[in-house]
Amino acid sequence: MSAPEQFSVPFSVAVRRGDVLQADCPSREVLKHMTSRWGVLVLVMLLGGMHRFSDLRRKIGGVSEKMLSQTLQGLESDGLVDRKALPVVPPHVEYRLTPLGQEAALHLETMVDWIEEKLPQIMSLRENRQQGAGAGMQHDS
Amino acid sequence: MSAPEQFSVPFSVAVRRGDVLQADCPSREVLKHMTSRWGVLVLVMLLGGMHRFSDLRRKIGGVSEKMLSQTLQGLESDGLVDRKALPVVPPHVEYRLTPLGQEAALHLETMVDWIEEKLPQIMSLRENRQQGAGAGMQHDS
Repeated sequence: MSAPEQFSVPFSVAVRRGDVLQADCPSREVLKHMTSRWGVLVLVMLLGGMHRFSDLRRKIGGVSEKMLSQTLQGLESDGLVDRKALPVVPPHVEYRLTPLGQEAALHLETMVDWIEEKLPQIMSLRENRQQGAGAGMQHDS
Repeated sequence: MSAPEQFSVPFSVAVRRGDVLQADCPSREVLKHMTSRWGVLVLVMLLGGMHRFSDLRRKIGGVSEKMLSQTLQGLESDGLVDRKALPVVPPHVEYRLTPLGQEAALHLETMVDWIEEKLPQIMSLRENRQQGAGAGMQHDS
């Protein structure tokens, strides 16, 4: 994926294209799956290659079996993740990115990298704000 | 922030960069705000410049007053959105992106553009999958 464009598209253009702004546009559903709490992490994790369910669960801190399962189903229904159940006992299920999922995951990885990099700055801003609020500087609600 | 005890590097170094894979990393909170259902849309909308609360609410289909307010508070606490309440009656509150928020929003805009562009492909994949399922071709769960 290329780095985000330095300049955003003109607002007028963005709005014309902006179907996600419509409550009933199906892009909202895709956005929801891709940006769900666990969807982001699953997609980025799968950039590293095929994972079994248990691998994903172990590597993504805090995800429950149920939430991981729902997340994978959503991503599969959008064609971003491919699920392959091998006919063996005990069950062996493999998950990998589709070509479309690869594109999606690269976008998210760029975003996650940015968040991780900017975290110190964000935490410091948050601390200053809280100190300001403590000193009675908080603006009216 | 709790100290990530599993790291052998000094705490100051370990926390310099976030790790979204750790359940207790504060980057998770930022990720949550940025990728919340409405957070994405608010940030991308603010790329177009300053908006009043009522403008945002009108332009973003389906958002409730309460959810928009919560979303803006989260983004403000991360230093992504700046809120300015003018001392007038009736209340006039302006929201704009901070420089950090501008960066965040550009990442999200790239992602949203990608979703909008790929939507026909995703919808078609989903349809094929549903037809496959209807014909008894769905794999075992």
